[in-house]
Amino acid sequence: MVGRARDFGLICGSLPPGPLNAITDVAGVAVGHRTLRDTGILTGFTAILPHRGDVFREKVRAGVEVINGFGKSAGLMQVAELGQIETPILLGNTFSVAAGIEALVGRALAGNPEIGRSTGTVNSLVLECNDGYLSDIRARRLTVADAEAALDAAAGGTVPEGAVGAGAGMSCFGFKGGIGTASRVMELDGRSFHLGVLVQANFGNAGDLVLPDGRRPVPAADAAPPAPERGSVIVILATDLPLESRQLTRIARRCGAGLARLGAFWGNGSGDIAVAFTTKAPIVHHEGAGIVPLDVLNENRIDLPFRAAAEATQEAVLNAMLAAPDTHGRDGHHRPSLADHL
Amino acid sequence: MVGRARDFGLICGSLPPGPLNAITDVAGVAVGHRTLRDTGILTGFTAILPHRGDVFREKVRAGVEVINGFGKSAGLMQVAELGQIETPILLGNTFSVAAGIEALVGRALAGNPEIGRSTGTVNSLVLECNDGYLSDIRARRLTVADAEAALDAAAGGTVPEGAVGAGAGMSCFGFKGGIGTASRVMELDGRSFHLGVLVQANFGNAGDLVLPDGRRPVPAADAAPPAPERGSVIVILATDLPLESRQLTRIARRCGAGLARLGAFWGNGSGDIAVAFTTKAPIVHHEGAGIVPLDVLNENRIDLPFRAAAEATQEAVLNAMLAAPDTHGRDGHHRPSLADHL
Amino acid sequence: MVGRARDFGLICGSLPPGPLNAITDVAGVAVGHRTLRDTGILTGFTAILPHRGDVFREKVRAGVEVINGFGKSAGLMQVAELGQIETPILLGNTFSVAAGIEALVGRALAGNPEIGRSTGTVNSLVLECNDGYLSDIRARRLTVADAEAALDAAAGGTVPEGAVGAGAGMSCFGFKGGIGTASRVMELDGRSFHLGVLVQANFGNAGDLVLPDGRRPVPAADAAPPAPERGSVIVILATDLPLESRQLTRIARRCGAGLARLGAFWGNGSGDIAVAFTTKAPIVHHEGAGIVPLDVLNENRIDLPFRAAAEATQEAVLNAMLAAPDTHGRDGHHRPSLADHL
Amino acid sequence: MVGRARDFGLICGSLPPGPLNAITDVAGVAVGHRTLRDTGILTGFTAILPHRGDVFREKVRAGVEVINGFGKSAGLMQVAELGQIETPILLGNTFSVAAGIEALVGRALAGNPEIGRSTGTVNSLVLECNDGYLSDIRARRLTVADAEAALDAAAGGTVPEGAVGAGAGMSCFGFKGGIGTASRVMELDGRSFHLGVLVQANFGNAGDLVLPDGRRPVPAADAAPPAPERGSVIVILATDLPLESRQLTRIARRCGAGLARLGAFWGNGSGDIAVAFTTKAPIVHHEGAGIVPLDVLNENRIDLPFRAAAEATQEAVLNAMLAAPDTHGRDGHHRPSLADHL
Repeated sequence: MVGRARDFGLICGSLPPGPLNAITDVAGVAVGHRTLRDTGILTGFTAILPHRGDVFREKVRAGVEVINGFGKSAGLMQVAELGQIETPILLGNTFSVAAGIEALVGRALAGNPEIGRSTGTVNSLVLECNDGYLSDIRARRLTVADAEAALDAAAGGTVPEGAVGAGAGMSCFGFKGGIGTASRVMELDGRSFHLGVLVQANFGNAGDLVLPDGRRPVPAADAAPPAPERGSVIVILATDLPLESRQLTRIARRCGAGLARLGAFWGNGSGDIAVAFTTKAPIVHHEGAGIVPLDVLNENRIDLPFRAAAEATQEAVLNAMLAAPDTHGRDGHHRPSLADHL
Repeated sequence: MVGRARDFGLICGSLPPGPLNAITDVAGVAVGHRTLRDTGILTGFTAILPHRGDVFREKVRAGVEVINGFGKSAGLMQVAELGQIETPILLGNTFSVAAGIEALVGRALAGNPEIGRSTGTVNSLVLECNDGYLSDIRARRLTVADAEAALDAAAGGTVPEGAVGAGAGMSCFGFKGGIGTASRVMELDGRSFHLGVLVQANFGNAGDLVLPDGRRPVPAADAAPPAPERGSVIVILATDLPLESRQLTRIARRCGAGLARLGAFWGNGSGDIAVAFTTKAPIVHHEGAGIVPLDVLNENRIDLPFRAAAEATQEAVLNAMLAAPDTHGRDGHHRPSLADHL
Repeated sequence: MVGRARDFGLICGSLPPGPLNAITDVAGVAVGHRTLRDTGILTGFTAILPHRGDVFREKVRAGVEVINGFGKSAGLMQVAELGQIETPILLGNTFSVAAGIEALVGRALAGNPEIGRSTGTVNSLVLECNDGYLSDIRARRLTVADAEAALDAAAGGTVPEGAVGAGAGMSCFGFKGGIGTASRVMELDGRSFHLGVLVQANFGNAGDLVLPDGRRPVPAADAAPPAPERGSVIVILATDLPLESRQLTRIARRCGAGLARLGAFWGNGSGDIAVAFTTKAPIVHHEGAGIVPLDVLNENRIDLPFRAAAEATQEAVLNAMLAAPDTHGRDGHHRPSLADHL
Repeated sequence: MVGRARDFGLICGSLPPGPLNAITDVAGVAVGHRTLRDTGILTGFTAILPHRGDVFREKVRAGVEVINGFGKSAGLMQVAELGQIETPILLGNTFSVAAGIEALVGRALAGNPEIGRSTGTVNSLVLECNDGYLSDIRARRLTVADAEAALDAAAGGTVPEGAVGAGAGMSCFGFKGGIGTASRVMELDGRSFHLGVLVQANFGNAGDLVLPDGRRPVPAADAAPPAPERGSVIVILATDLPLESRQLTRIARRCGAGLARLGAFWGNGSGDIAVAFTTKAPIVHHEGAGIVPLDVLNENRIDLPFRAAAEATQEAVLNAMLAAPDTHGRDGHHRPSLADHL
């Protein structure tokens, strides 16, 4: 029976989770899925909205960590340079990046008539994993309309996990992977702050998974043919801590520690990317003032979000796996559910 | 009358150019253009083929330098991680990146049935500048077919320069920009090696241009309304020197010196990117051996390609500008030709 | 009773260790210690020699990963730029970096009269951790002579571990830390290659340590006062695999995964650095040829050293801790031995 | 007759200089020199104080750009990670880095008894160029006392330029190099901000120098034997603009454009480093609050300091060269003055 890590007694680290134990514990963040299931097709898009306004007009401060750059994501270079995100974030499969870009550009153009006229252009943020083991990725079935459907489905509250949206065709340590999420609450100066993570988990070799209690579940051989890792994992981290982009970059890096604790070594063929943003102090596109005020975390306290990032990433991956059922895909390919092995 | 920099007596640096003074002086490299001209539309694609074979099967060693990361290019992250390019390179406008990806993915899938089945996916390399000053970029007129047309047009020999292909709508220092190319011959141990550069030149503020002889031509005010730079410049560098990817990255960085010599300071809104590859020692996708031999340049001699990279970049930009005629674009926008100011 | 991880039944990962399970399993690599023990003083130097020749004349190919840059190491910038190491490597405490530089410069000048005359200068490589919890670091007791003593003591064979050399004053997860080492054998194309790691382990918060079997030993409260991490960990990785420097950089990065598996999140105040080098294809300082041949690993096989790097790092840290006895230092500070808690 | 660039009619760019046209136009910044002149010895230290207080207790926000990493500077890694500087900055020669570290550590320990006891350690910032062409660098004549003398000499007001302090033994484009400085005033929202640069100029091949007016002065052959560049250039940039460290890093990068405009291509053997800091919003070491307020520049206005950085760097190098007289050094080595060639 599928569930969440804590339902199985698996606790990652020491910080308390938020009310939903989800990225949506960060106020304003919304998640939407579009899932395609057809013969030989298990794929989809997942959208993460940093807030409910127009992200082009109110950009969010962000940082990027390329844990291993074997990937085809679009938009990361500008996020790293400017420390900001100016569209919703889309997760899809490797060959859906173009459709994702088109959807985000289309929405930005529709909402901002000045783009390409009196102001510059727009940087779409689309990340991806390869779902070709379970799904016919050569069919290139994901369309602009599918990306738009994921964006339109975005909502706060409980986040559907497992084999949904961009998680439909994922594999993880030889088991079924998918979308998962988790969060942590951080107490600072008497106030509570939140840090949430959402992962698209498609990484890890069969036999390498280590649970927080030391168990090492291994899928049956038929589900995990020996092969070099050609997965990937995307980690999206949201927080309501006030941070500058350099700090967000440092925090994003710690998501890699969460992956390593599960047994990953960030394999050659795995595009492992973490993107972190804060909902605090958005950057106004048409800002008139030359100098703008900003609150930032005292760097001496940054171990708190570092710890939260590692813990939430580790738990989000387990949530992705434990929510995903035993799945048969294209050409007889099969991924068992981790939940059936606990 | 348009021409090339040397026709105007402008010499950049001290190394001799190759026979064509073009990126195609590097044996095997081919360039193709697809240009769209219509009411309010001046745009296009330019394709650079590292060699005439299947680039997925025989990848070229490469390095990337992000001079300023305000840009929407696709594929750079994996080039940086793996030090290799596995598709032809497409240059287009900012909103044509998705079409470019689709074209490259389509070609790679058609030529390699194992992609997405028994092997991984493919990393498309598409770079861009914003041609929105002269062309209606919101119209999103460039299609997958246009990208394919540029790829199909690729040929060796003389490279059409100026307002062609992805250079159709470019602006540069308030003048008309475009596509330009130049090359240098490098003597080493009694052998001749070649280094060629192709630029998509769309950067620089009016009034900042400095010619190699110290002149500072300025366009008339109507052609250069005061505005923050929202340009970009893409530099593609090819060589037949044997190099490892770290060396190619170092060489790519020196393209920025060539830009700065023209008066650029790599403005905030300018996505300035250099990609360098060598045609030597391609990486075989289905390589069976665990260890592969490679020749590399003695690092003590690397000033030679450093110098060539800076000189050829500087000259390629001048060639792009001097080949481009006085041009009127959308909504009465106008860019004069630098050639008319010399 | 102190010992090594395998003596306690602790196995990290799946690859087999080399004969010594030490960095000295890589032929030619030598390690030497100089330890200072006095009232309130527990400190020292550890030297790693990539080979027994003059490293300035025969440099080794290398890569660097700055896992967390809160550190005062000297020499890393040039290693990253040139992909080469040209002196032995010294590990010391934070305030001994200058003494380490002086020792390495002195040796290089003595052995190479052309330095500073007909050739350039020399890049010393000195890394450090803060041993101020157990030792009086303000006393600045380590001298150039101590660094030279460590260099002179360098030998192959079994490596003394635990509270020796630069490990004398280390702390790790609230326990006594120190110097540790481990290795892995990698089979490729019917040949055996070796990868060895040596760590200076001084990182981790009490309560965060996770053993490979899932146990979580916690030191008594007196030994682990709650405090922000001000440790660090240095990882030196040697291999006889033929690699280019970009590959070595990728491999160095995976040492961070080994640390994370132990419970680290690469804390703010912890300078976590990995340096990787190969003994294959040294770079001859006075190389006359313009082009030099090189063998490199097929990138498709790089998961093998990735896995070895993560496993050996994890095990080397455990070896460092388990070899170190219960230790009392300055001002009543105390670190218990992990070996006493298993 | 020596002088400054503007005395010779050489103007770099378009922004106005500050009252002193020096880094000391940024309020609080102080510069001090210690020069050693003896038979065969032309060397020294130059100190830059970001402010007159204890820099460990009030750190300044900073960014680093490694233009070319062939250098032996100490302290840059931590500046890049934390975005802050916590000691004065010392410039010296390549083999004086250890003495510089010792001086800075000694001062920090003396002023802050809690270092190494209740708080962590301290990150010294020492940068260097190789003065071995004119001076006997193997003699290692610079001592801790010399570094302290430079620190003690630090003052505001006019900065001595040319062959003083760390500039004593510098060479530049085959001419005598040295220490130079320049500044720019930037108007923003009706207020004036300042950006100043100080360079230690020791780079460039004879024959490559280009003046802002297009002239290309070349030293006589005896002064510029053909040889690979083994120089370096250090650029220290100070400003009173409010900036976050990511912005300072972007600004530091533009110093490289100033160098390139002079004809540099950032040669292989040249350690070209830029460090930028702001005097605004210092970071309090013992900060108690978890969240701290900060003003930052609107990123859309960052072209202003970009331009200022490039211009001031270019002019500071010319000032360094034009202030330096014809100089004879060790073993008959000779560098003519650029001022004698205009």
